[in-house]
Amino acid sequence: MIIITGALRLDPDKIEEARPHMRVLIETTQKESGCLLYAWAEDVLEPGLIRMIEHWQDWPSFVAHDQSPHAAKWKAALAKIGLLDRDMWAHDGSNARKL
Amino acid sequence: MIIITGALRLDPDKIEEARPHMRVLIETTQKESGCLLYAWAEDVLEPGLIRMIEHWQDWPSFVAHDQSPHAAKWKAALAKIGLLDRDMWAHDGSNARKL
Repeated sequence: MIIITGALRLDPDKIEEARPHMRVLIETTQKESGCLLYAWAEDVLEPGLIRMIEHWQDWPSFVAHDQSPHAAKWKAALAKIGLLDRDMWAHDGSNARKL
Repeated sequence: MIIITGALRLDPDKIEEARPHMRVLIETTQKESGCLLYAWAEDVLEPGLIRMIEHWQDWPSFVAHDQSPHAAKWKAALAKIGLLDRDMWAHDGSNARKL
């Protein structure tokens, strides 16, 4: 399994403009083959900082998502909204253990 | 590295009551030895659903955190606030790749 954790920093005043675009991206992505978890959330201490948690069955599933039309639409919307910073990491996630 | 992804579901009307307790927990935890990332964020589509992303250097670092006095204080506060649901997973995170 691939685990992606990351963050996008937006102007806090732009979150409501971004939210419907995020909704379309998230709800479309959650139906994709190989998508086990796809969640975006706003940091509880830093307004405008969007945290992403993604679990993908394998690397090709993630790549297919990244190259999808809905991902392209989100990136176009984000370019208009304005992206202040971005940090994303993929990890091979093995030996899952429920806490 | 250990990666923890999880979620706590609170009543959306209790988030503002919970936020100062979350702030103390997060800011104290971020100073802990072995803590590489500790972020809590509210789902952009589901108010009240708190997503957690944690990166720990190793398993003992996470266990020390989980048994810390500040974690106990948070759990006591959460018991009063009310926890509706909880889902947390730990994964061995290897082969990190920046996206």
